[in-house]
Amino acid sequence: MEADRPLLMIPGPIEFSPAVLKATGEPSLSHVSPDFINLFSEALVLLRQVFLTTKAQPFVVSGSGTLGWDMVGANLLERDEKALVVSTGYFGDRFADCLESFGAQVTKLKAATLGDCPSVEELKQALSQASYKLVTLTHVDTSTGVLTDVKSFAKAIREVSPQTLVVVDGVCATGAEEFRMDEWDVDVCHTASQKAIGVPPGLAILLASPRAMEVFANRKTRPAGYFIDWNRWLPIMQNYEAKKGSYFATPAVNLVKALNVSLKEILADGGMEKRFQAHVDASRKVREAIRAFGLEFIPVREELFAHTLTVVRLPAAVTDGAKFLGSVKQHGAVLAGGLFPEIKYFRIGHMAYSVVSEAEHGHVLRTLKAIEAGLRDCGYAVPEGAALPNKL
Amino acid sequence: MEADRPLLMIPGPIEFSPAVLKATGEPSLSHVSPDFINLFSEALVLLRQVFLTTKAQPFVVSGSGTLGWDMVGANLLERDEKALVVSTGYFGDRFADCLESFGAQVTKLKAATLGDCPSVEELKQALSQASYKLVTLTHVDTSTGVLTDVKSFAKAIREVSPQTLVVVDGVCATGAEEFRMDEWDVDVCHTASQKAIGVPPGLAILLASPRAMEVFANRKTRPAGYFIDWNRWLPIMQNYEAKKGSYFATPAVNLVKALNVSLKEILADGGMEKRFQAHVDASRKVREAIRAFGLEFIPVREELFAHTLTVVRLPAAVTDGAKFLGSVKQHGAVLAGGLFPEIKYFRIGHMAYSVVSEAEHGHVLRTLKAIEAGLRDCGYAVPEGAALPNKL
Repeated sequence: MEADRPLLMIPGPIEFSPAVLKATGEPSLSHVSPDFINLFSEALVLLRQVFLTTKAQPFVVSGSGTLGWDMVGANLLERDEKALVVSTGYFGDRFADCLESFGAQVTKLKAATLGDCPSVEELKQALSQASYKLVTLTHVDTSTGVLTDVKSFAKAIREVSPQTLVVVDGVCATGAEEFRMDEWDVDVCHTASQKAIGVPPGLAILLASPRAMEVFANRKTRPAGYFIDWNRWLPIMQNYEAKKGSYFATPAVNLVKALNVSLKEILADGGMEKRFQAHVDASRKVREAIRAFGLEFIPVREELFAHTLTVVRLPAAVTDGAKFLGSVKQHGAVLAGGLFPEIKYFRIGHMAYSVVSEAEHGHVLRTLKAIEAGLRDCGYAVPEGAALPNKL
Repeated sequence: MEADRPLLMIPGPIEFSPAVLKATGEPSLSHVSPDFINLFSEALVLLRQVFLTTKAQPFVVSGSGTLGWDMVGANLLERDEKALVVSTGYFGDRFADCLESFGAQVTKLKAATLGDCPSVEELKQALSQASYKLVTLTHVDTSTGVLTDVKSFAKAIREVSPQTLVVVDGVCATGAEEFRMDEWDVDVCHTASQKAIGVPPGLAILLASPRAMEVFANRKTRPAGYFIDWNRWLPIMQNYEAKKGSYFATPAVNLVKALNVSLKEILADGGMEKRFQAHVDASRKVREAIRAFGLEFIPVREELFAHTLTVVRLPAAVTDGAKFLGSVKQHGAVLAGGLFPEIKYFRIGHMAYSVVSEAEHGHVLRTLKAIEAGLRDCGYAVPEGAALPNKL
């Protein structure tokens, strides 16, 4: 079946494992049946293992990554409280918009150049200028492929402003990029199902530290909204984890079943350490090949390269980005265009099933070969000697 | 496969058609691919046909029925505006809670008896006592199986208070119960995918009339929240319908693909008129059988019976409701318990695939036979002569 269709190599939705897709398409379970309660309970426990935390509270809600922002804004901020958003692209900027919609006073910290990230020193300086209720970090900004050094940033925040909540947007990262929620003392990390978690889109997944839950418990005002109010969801999540049926809003039972399958796949055979390394290895191969083709990247320094996607500038010879993407698709891989129309670039997603089972199905190699062919089709001369081997 | 597992005969999620499940479990499409844009565009057009409207604006968003309430509260009400909630059970009461969370002043209109519905005269009287921005009606309250006469209520609202928005919670109704959005002059109708629309849970579906969209456009304040703000979603829906790629939050592409399949099935072979009648016929058969068993219902009058589910009181002889449900499941059908713990009752869902393909697979008959067997197991003597035939 795969051979008949181009691979989905965008930064999400991605290629999902056969077992995940099978679970997604099976007849639905009742949301209060023992079978479903058991598998939801398991998924909540497994999520903590994937986020490397023993104590955070998981929330799994029908929605998207955007809904995760809303949960932060509605539940952890009150009107006129201050938030600092460290932005490395489109998604950081939009997280700021979202927090403002809840009445927060938002300050943005951005690097001067797109593709760069503010330094730890700049963050410390910003923190010394105002008292922030929370700081948000985009682990990987999907629009630029810039990786934020969450570990160092979280450490700096804890040093300069110990009570400030550290919020990580893990949408294009969690499940693939190294992330240690407890060890790095992060308060909130949220993601969406269709990225490195490896489940078709439709689930917002968020884990909140005891510190974040205490800040929530001590709110003075009621959160705006009903569907995103943790007062509604907390007992539901606690009940499901304790294997008791519970109802607030009907969960997306097929996607939760698929999540259970995917989390077990993620944790099998080496667990998170092996998974982090697999994404480092795959992204290095992609980067080496793209560099050998003579192309350049949006991230401005090696340490800013995400391991879940690679964001590449189109060479001057390729004047029609849409034609290039169409040609790559003809050769077997769907890539994503850019989100900033003023820059000519494209994005290659390499996450989860496509990375960890590379030896079996060669998704990454097939994608690079499709890019090579697409470049040639569009009049760009791939350097001699850059042609790809038959095995990476 | 079906023979090996009990049928899911709750008021949602339900049994889904094989073609819908197949679409749900297929590899994901890119949310900006031409294939996905086409099928999302088609789904938006088909939704209008299912809701019997030519002019309402559809919104399809990852979420649940509860999110539909939030969309109403956030987008159509401003702080301290008045809403009247006609409640016929748990879901009416919760809709009121939700609207209050957005700062609305909510009045509830309820009948004295659970299982009853306020009269048109009571509604008119309530409308004469205050000026309401909107009135909500629960077409079918899933907790009681009470059907609200939306047509007569909408007519009364339009007569007494022409500018008041008529909002219909169609969660356990739309796609099965007679509903004519344009002819009845309804302003908002929302539902969730997993009921009579026939798609696994995870989509909130809402259609808004031009009157509702004008009220929204004339708001004085910004809606609370980001993910539910129609300012974000309106251009996305308009672009997808016009077959242009667009991005606000990643749609649940597998569920939208399944929605496209299900809407085509709903509209094929006789369309909505035939579908309404199929649910009337199936519910009559269920009611007749249950009545022949000697059991009683929660709705207090014949015209209050929903056609999508039947809500039945347990006979006194059956003292353990959980044991009864377990026994019915052993005999082949999963039913739902009650939502009001003070009343001993159970709920049978009969919607969509299980109703319209009854002749093929006999879901309704198998369910009734399982109930008959479960009653006997639990010590209730089903009257002689009430035993079911082999074909309904």
